[in-house]
Amino acid sequence: MKKIAISLGDPNGIGIEIALKAHDEIKQFCKPLYFINKALLQRAAKLLECRIPDDFITCECGKDFELKPGKFSKKAGKFSFVSFANAFLNVKNHKADALVTLPINKQAWAKAGIKYHGHTEALSDFCKRDAIMMLGCEELFVGLFTDHQPLKSVPKSVKKKALARFLLSFAKASGFDKIGVLGLNPHAGDGGILGREDEKIVKAIKIANKVLGARVFSGPLVPDVAFNPLALKRTNRLVAMYHDQALAPLKALYFDSAINVSLALPIIRTSPDHGTAFDIAYKGFANITSYINAVKYAVIQANNKKQSK
Amino acid sequence: MKKIAISLGDPNGIGIEIALKAHDEIKQFCKPLYFINKALLQRAAKLLECRIPDDFITCECGKDFELKPGKFSKKAGKFSFVSFANAFLNVKNHKADALVTLPINKQAWAKAGIKYHGHTEALSDFCKRDAIMMLGCEELFVGLFTDHQPLKSVPKSVKKKALARFLLSFAKASGFDKIGVLGLNPHAGDGGILGREDEKIVKAIKIANKVLGARVFSGPLVPDVAFNPLALKRTNRLVAMYHDQALAPLKALYFDSAINVSLALPIIRTSPDHGTAFDIAYKGFANITSYINAVKYAVIQANNKKQSK
Repeated sequence: MKKIAISLGDPNGIGIEIALKAHDEIKQFCKPLYFINKALLQRAAKLLECRIPDDFITCECGKDFELKPGKFSKKAGKFSFVSFANAFLNVKNHKADALVTLPINKQAWAKAGIKYHGHTEALSDFCKRDAIMMLGCEELFVGLFTDHQPLKSVPKSVKKKALARFLLSFAKASGFDKIGVLGLNPHAGDGGILGREDEKIVKAIKIANKVLGARVFSGPLVPDVAFNPLALKRTNRLVAMYHDQALAPLKALYFDSAINVSLALPIIRTSPDHGTAFDIAYKGFANITSYINAVKYAVIQANNKKQSK
Repeated sequence: MKKIAISLGDPNGIGIEIALKAHDEIKQFCKPLYFINKALLQRAAKLLECRIPDDFITCECGKDFELKPGKFSKKAGKFSFVSFANAFLNVKNHKADALVTLPINKQAWAKAGIKYHGHTEALSDFCKRDAIMMLGCEELFVGLFTDHQPLKSVPKSVKKKALARFLLSFAKASGFDKIGVLGLNPHAGDGGILGREDEKIVKAIKIANKVLGARVFSGPLVPDVAFNPLALKRTNRLVAMYHDQALAPLKALYFDSAINVSLALPIIRTSPDHGTAFDIAYKGFANITSYINAVKYAVIQANNKKQSK
């Protein structure tokens, strides 16, 4: 069975609860390694009024400190980074087959002096590659051409060559052979009346398809039409120009089941697509569907990787 | 029963088919008046291989000409404008209680030399008021702060005073007493890291609530979270900053049932939220759900208007 290195995320959020709740299910199809120290884990289990399973294997890391459910803290920020960095190194050094990260809190990272905005940015830096954020589930996957940047900077980022490079990288990393590319403007520009950037998208698609020698990419698709059920029957592998263009419809349709996948990295990494959910931390309500899907996807990718070697 | 003036839209699209198909159902709850000449209607009925109901009351307008299913044409563009303008005048002159428009084709309007981009723009000009586009259905209505404009011009449009004015107009016209306002940037700006416009939205909300003397507006909501099922249970009346922010998730969730409502006008006007669907024109596949919902909503608004006089 594949070994999956799991970072526990912010310990004041729902990460540890999810890992404990889902353990019996995920151990059926992988060997999870949890990056947390036993003392902190015991505190969490006490708060959750649950037993720690005997086969819950921890890789000791980070400090022990008092938990404050639903609060930002420097200590929690530091712990969540240490857990993540150790889990990453474990995979990088081939001791585990894939990395699954539970959610961290950005403000807690900032308080702890961590310079990264989030996991994906940190992984890009660790690996010296531009990671691609892809979100979704079997029914719908969307790759993000731009992700965490102000909306006003997005139209300027839509350039022919940069987009063509992204499309080629996404096609290679995802393995998808039929991908729809969303337009940038309403009605994909409506022939130029509602913006000209969509013309650059047309050109980038042409370049990418030419290099690939196949009509892998189509579009630009009209963004508000692309997510309706009939359209998704035609194309359910998409590239979005910006964060909310992908995530608002995706979460509307598949809130509980969608996951986050980092592509174009030398390691496999997935995560649930939700945050720390401080409002429901340690209340027993956390939904484990997205996390279990993230672990499953990581295992499938790890199996594929071995086969393709 | 309320009289509803119905413009037939582009005759090379699915408008006439929908009107004929839905007639038996809508006549149960309103008195529809169809703005088309009998000769053109007969041509359409012949193409559709269907009978024109005896109680299908036409208000003669526009010319008779050969129909070309699924094709742009100057004649069709002109007809669809004449049908719309006559139906509008009928309502304006109190001969009917509300206007329902079937979809027109923008390129056909352009070919016919019609200067408007669409119905909403024309109505704003006819009435000398800024119409507000609202789209949705009982489960979710979204008002658009900006609608048909290039994405790059949207961030500049998000200004404190202009948005506050819009919010007050939307609250008055919609009658909603609990409305969520979406942020502009990913994560609603994440405390300024991902853009500053969301701070202007905070201020506009404060101004609007102060003028209203009640906490009608909340937000800015994180755009990619606001449309998930749990969030919609809390707030399903929203204001979006731009076209696709509202329409992509709305059509993902309620493609067949959503309608388009023009608010802040002296007349009541609704329409289905789909287009001319040239690809399926005269093939018998057109879905009538959105149209029927549009007529129902117009009748309800007309009844409310009478009561409030």
